[in-house]
Amino acid sequence: MFRTHNCGELRAANIGEQVTLSGWVQRSRDKGGMLWVDLRDRWGVTQLSFEEGKTASQILDKARELGREFVIQATGEVIQRESMNDKMPTGEVEIFVSDLTILNSSHIPPFKIEDETDGGEDLRMKYRYLDLRRNPVREKLQLRHKMMRAVRDYLDQKEFIEVETPVLIKSTPEGARDFVVPSRLNKGEFYALPQSPQTFKQLLMVSGFDRYFQIVKCFRDEDLRADRQPEFTQIDCEMAFIEQEDILNLFEGMTKYLFKNVKGVEIEDFQRMEYADAMRLYGSDKPDIRFGMEFVELNDVAKEKGFKVFDEAELVVGIRVPGCASYTRKQLDGLTNFVKTPQVGAKGLVYVKCNEDGSFKSSVDKFFTQEQLAEWAKKSEAQPGDLLLVLSGDTGKVRNQMNVLRLKMGDELGLRKPEEYKPLWVVNFPLLEWDEESKRFHAMHHPFTSPKAEDIPLLDTNPGDVRANAYDLVINGVEIGGGSIRIHDKSTQALMFKHLGFTEEEAKEQFGFLMEAFEYGAPPHGGIAFGFDRLCAMFGGTESIRDYIAFPKNTSGRDVMIDAPSAVDDVQLQDLGIIKIEE
Amino acid sequence: MFRTHNCGELRAANIGEQVTLSGWVQRSRDKGGMLWVDLRDRWGVTQLSFEEGKTASQILDKARELGREFVIQATGEVIQRESMNDKMPTGEVEIFVSDLTILNSSHIPPFKIEDETDGGEDLRMKYRYLDLRRNPVREKLQLRHKMMRAVRDYLDQKEFIEVETPVLIKSTPEGARDFVVPSRLNKGEFYALPQSPQTFKQLLMVSGFDRYFQIVKCFRDEDLRADRQPEFTQIDCEMAFIEQEDILNLFEGMTKYLFKNVKGVEIEDFQRMEYADAMRLYGSDKPDIRFGMEFVELNDVAKEKGFKVFDEAELVVGIRVPGCASYTRKQLDGLTNFVKTPQVGAKGLVYVKCNEDGSFKSSVDKFFTQEQLAEWAKKSEAQPGDLLLVLSGDTGKVRNQMNVLRLKMGDELGLRKPEEYKPLWVVNFPLLEWDEESKRFHAMHHPFTSPKAEDIPLLDTNPGDVRANAYDLVINGVEIGGGSIRIHDKSTQALMFKHLGFTEEEAKEQFGFLMEAFEYGAPPHGGIAFGFDRLCAMFGGTESIRDYIAFPKNTSGRDVMIDAPSAVDDVQLQDLGIIKIEE
Repeated sequence: MFRTHNCGELRAANIGEQVTLSGWVQRSRDKGGMLWVDLRDRWGVTQLSFEEGKTASQILDKARELGREFVIQATGEVIQRESMNDKMPTGEVEIFVSDLTILNSSHIPPFKIEDETDGGEDLRMKYRYLDLRRNPVREKLQLRHKMMRAVRDYLDQKEFIEVETPVLIKSTPEGARDFVVPSRLNKGEFYALPQSPQTFKQLLMVSGFDRYFQIVKCFRDEDLRADRQPEFTQIDCEMAFIEQEDILNLFEGMTKYLFKNVKGVEIEDFQRMEYADAMRLYGSDKPDIRFGMEFVELNDVAKEKGFKVFDEAELVVGIRVPGCASYTRKQLDGLTNFVKTPQVGAKGLVYVKCNEDGSFKSSVDKFFTQEQLAEWAKKSEAQPGDLLLVLSGDTGKVRNQMNVLRLKMGDELGLRKPEEYKPLWVVNFPLLEWDEESKRFHAMHHPFTSPKAEDIPLLDTNPGDVRANAYDLVINGVEIGGGSIRIHDKSTQALMFKHLGFTEEEAKEQFGFLMEAFEYGAPPHGGIAFGFDRLCAMFGGTESIRDYIAFPKNTSGRDVMIDAPSAVDDVQLQDLGIIKIEE
Repeated sequence: MFRTHNCGELRAANIGEQVTLSGWVQRSRDKGGMLWVDLRDRWGVTQLSFEEGKTASQILDKARELGREFVIQATGEVIQRESMNDKMPTGEVEIFVSDLTILNSSHIPPFKIEDETDGGEDLRMKYRYLDLRRNPVREKLQLRHKMMRAVRDYLDQKEFIEVETPVLIKSTPEGARDFVVPSRLNKGEFYALPQSPQTFKQLLMVSGFDRYFQIVKCFRDEDLRADRQPEFTQIDCEMAFIEQEDILNLFEGMTKYLFKNVKGVEIEDFQRMEYADAMRLYGSDKPDIRFGMEFVELNDVAKEKGFKVFDEAELVVGIRVPGCASYTRKQLDGLTNFVKTPQVGAKGLVYVKCNEDGSFKSSVDKFFTQEQLAEWAKKSEAQPGDLLLVLSGDTGKVRNQMNVLRLKMGDELGLRKPEEYKPLWVVNFPLLEWDEESKRFHAMHHPFTSPKAEDIPLLDTNPGDVRANAYDLVINGVEIGGGSIRIHDKSTQALMFKHLGFTEEEAKEQFGFLMEAFEYGAPPHGGIAFGFDRLCAMFGGTESIRDYIAFPKNTSGRDVMIDAPSAVDDVQLQDLGIIKIEE
């Protein structure tokens, strides 16, 4: 037997017991004839002690050989520690070692295996298996495990059935970002890896499974931005005989359950916001509502007063930054420089200081009177001491810019508190979005997303105004999940295809067997999918999803630890019916 | 709201309530002014009723339009049923419908959506989404869900952490059966899909995760026999600081837990059997021990008595078939023909009837006296009325043959009872097996499997006799899982590589980063993997794993429903740095 206890469980109550522990040498100190070794495993650290004269000399010699990260087994008596360490749960005791076995030696690790390490990102990725030894890294994956457990507990209670859908599926014409897999048994043909199990979950609804879920790997072969991974995990769900309201309630319940059971946090009922309001008030379909600073549209008070920049703009929009009228010239220049960076892309920034004495000081004093500025302040509900920041331009662009500025101001004022959680349902997304390149409408979500019944007449007149039964869950400005009620009847689907510019044949070719399945009694249904990596990162309080993936890939899609992808034997490729193109 | 209740829950206690149900039309009967419709969902079937004169005529007309598998919503009062149906849980009541909505129509399904269907295998696979509507098919996937839940519950209790390992990994030189995935971002290079997460789970042990598990998809691109799938699911587990005994106990516990919680069956402690004994007594490394009929080796009583066939054989081996001395000529000829089929491959069968009067009648009476046959009977512990069946030949071959015959006799006598479960640990597998083709030893399990410490000296003298710390879980003759204690120290690993004929460089090339990881303090560890599809089939009481996979592939690796694999655009392939070879 390698151990009687783990390294995190011995307490004063165990004093006098003979125990055996196994683990890794965290550090050792040799001083005045005493030797102490900190022994570490997943559960904690326990101190081992040895004493010249008391400890058998061959044991002591062996203990003196121990290097960092050696794997050892130690047997001895639990004794009271002379100087208690109240920072560690085992800090009252130590093991006075009577027997010691070195189970394995270790090279000196390329970086420190401690909570704070000296290893750079690249080195830690190459030696990911060593980085995973560090508590903060391992704990993130333990959190992930706990999240998976809680998701499954909740959905099982709600009678969802977890069904594994295939990983080797069919490549679709629009699947430009599909990973493909050549088939040996069907030479010249390819499987694709799923970007999501969308088709299969809808088929399961046709099959009467009624409530399906899966925590499932999905794949996308695209240029990786900082926080994307070619393989990622979704909580994928679909329900039959439900309406949007049912889905929002059920998954609001799940999210609250997770906060309660994983973080011990009670969350209030989620706010709901129309997509159009989110864009108007926050310039984003994923607003961070932990703080206000909603947009104030100033067209009626700021335009046609002789300031050309505003007069030529489609939208003049401001935010009220509370208590910042005292910003210095330098601070204001900093903000102006910030909005001019490519990240924001504005041409300039207008500010209005609402002074404590009731007067106003602005960067456009030349064009606006105190009375006119007072109107801005009134419209913005600004108080003496507040600062107004104003941008102008094309509606879409200026909203984007103001969104970035608002988030920056939230950060500067410490209003985006890490331990505060404000989930939000953004609902009624547009059904269609105009694609300038192809000069036609595309489905914003996917072609099976249903339009609001009352908006269907608009399809012919104002397709861009048709709202969909589509919703996103946003937490603290991060999109965590999204879904829709699907179209289940033929006539609506035909209408949809017509407006997407598909002929019946094209639709059949592209969505073939799903369309066929729908001919055999498809129930009303809808669903949602959560980005599980991102959800874990949200719960863990860090930004990067990579930290929550045991063996992540870098931004070039490489696993630098195992060195994948890599070359493959030409003979093997030939066997698959393919050859490499010579560059 | 689509429903107040599901189709399986209404009882006499609900009589008088107004309810709304949604589901599929199972069948309808129109007789003497009454119309009944059976409405089905995942939870059951409830009868709807309509009556001429009482039901509004437009509702009645609509009800008469309903075809099989139409999706409807019906509202009405729960009333007592005139003729109760005690075969269904809802059989006391029916809904007298006051409102009816047709949510979707349906084509006539290509086969009957009933427990017994008229659809052939191929048709049901093409319309898998309709086959999944049938109770027995859906229930198999619900069983699978329940099994997954129970596995996770048990392992979570035991402090295992579920960690998702990557799907896009590195192709290895010996990975001839790897599926490969071309990378767009790293043109000319390929990922491989994992045949198992073996490397990653061992790395997680190096990382100190201590107890890892995962229910995980694995992939193997090989010619598919009847019951193999290119993607399959494993329960994959690994533990640190454990010995073989710990693993056997822990996973015996898991298996019992599953039987208890999923099937309500208490299983006795598992038997254990040495691999060598399994081969000697059952001619198989996965014996079905629900019945006896162990092999009896008869060399000392059957050889050198002048029967050339036996004299030239390496092994003469028999089984005692209880109570079958009364077998007719025709029955015995049938058995002889059976052993001559390619499935068995024997040249002939010797029988000895142990008659009730104490005499013997055999097919080799010409060569053996009654006294000699009495010796066989004594050795076999045969009683009057028993039948001995004897085969002879090379040890390996004849054991294989007798194994098949024994199982057939078990079937014939009804000794392989479907509801009886006899799990068995087969332990101490050989470490190495001789490969006639390459004229060298191969690792039987994999090169990291540890030898029994006491057998290490045999590596130099009798490598084939070295036993490994390797074990299989066998239930009723089916291999359900297997694993081993791994080598964690360098010297043993070097010894192993030497005997496998690897130079140090070759070993490094082939097992590179894992070998490097082992330099940084690898703990003693071992693990096991269960074939989850097969385990589900075992629990479900059917043979085919395909029944337990929602969307399986056929024996050519095709998904005939979605028609995958399929052709991919040449432009897309070019983008991946590959082209198809023209045939």
